[in-house]
Amino acid sequence: PVPRKAAAVENKLPCTLEELYTGSTRKMKISRSIVDASGKTMQVEEILTIEVKAGWKKGTKITFPEKGNEQPNVVPADLVFVIDEKPHNVFKRDGNDLIYTHKIPLVEALTGTTVNLTTLDGRPLTISCNEIISPGYEKVVPREGMPIAKEPGKKGNLRIRFDVKYPSRLTAEQKTGIKRLLGSG
Amino acid sequence: PVPRKAAAVENKLPCTLEELYTGSTRKMKISRSIVDASGKTMQVEEILTIEVKAGWKKGTKITFPEKGNEQPNVVPADLVFVIDEKPHNVFKRDGNDLIYTHKIPLVEALTGTTVNLTTLDGRPLTISCNEIISPGYEKVVPREGMPIAKEPGKKGNLRIRFDVKYPSRLTAEQKTGIKRLLGSG
Repeated sequence: PVPRKAAAVENKLPCTLEELYTGSTRKMKISRSIVDASGKTMQVEEILTIEVKAGWKKGTKITFPEKGNEQPNVVPADLVFVIDEKPHNVFKRDGNDLIYTHKIPLVEALTGTTVNLTTLDGRPLTISCNEIISPGYEKVVPREGMPIAKEPGKKGNLRIRFDVKYPSRLTAEQKTGIKRLLGSG
Repeated sequence: PVPRKAAAVENKLPCTLEELYTGSTRKMKISRSIVDASGKTMQVEEILTIEVKAGWKKGTKITFPEKGNEQPNVVPADLVFVIDEKPHNVFKRDGNDLIYTHKIPLVEALTGTTVNLTTLDGRPLTISCNEIISPGYEKVVPREGMPIAKEPGKKGNLRIRFDVKYPSRLTAEQKTGIKRLLGSG
């Protein structure tokens, strides 16, 4: 009879957004039981190497066939690692895009602002916005998103969102000035 | 044996938001078959009166027991009307609240605006907003929402949302002026 195979064992592999951006080699030490030629069970340690490819997404699975525990008359389980994405302080990932939220005061939304960032591979990036930033506006910076694993060399976009802080109050003089500057009358 | 009862027949009763605000008497002409004493089936018309109560919501059911078609050896179906709410041009309903979206230019969001409305029962309503209207701000006008059917005399709130239209461009002179007025420097 065909020997029964044990059910696959899944483990999460948490990766930083930087690792998923540049790619990374992860070594995982595992401990498993093996059965030797005489039938005796012993515990061994092994190092598995996982090549995390640039652009991999949460949920990507890497399978090491039959690397589970050995037992008599059972084919060892497959050992599966599932990529998980750690939250990032600066960027949010949306598929192949990265999203960055830039906080600015209203005056900059109307008169212009400059966004200074460090990319996930450590480059400084300066983006000037001289357009008027109305609610919901997104500035799209092409090819500064995540690498696309299946299309080497290609990248998604960086999308900059704006969190515009309004003044909490204005003086009568400021209101008069704004009416004069922006009023239609 | 207990005679079988026919499955209830449901009909939608579309109501305007005005009808649901003030309450309304709706007369519905129905046509049904009845079986007379001799066993002959004949078609009759009836007028059913529905008192739509102020504050009723979409999904409210009014049941007229056994007003379905008569058939030999079957208890006629219940006739059920289900309140439906027609879309309104000015207000959206959110539970007991009404939502009104007011379009204004940025200058009014910063310097003040006045909302002029006609309520669902035809009263003119003027609401002054002198606070600064930042994105997502809602002006709540207590007790100008929908009547609450189960608490006669009570009403929900009117919530005014703002759709702020930004200028599509500003001259260098306008930008300088805004920086002078709003800038922190």
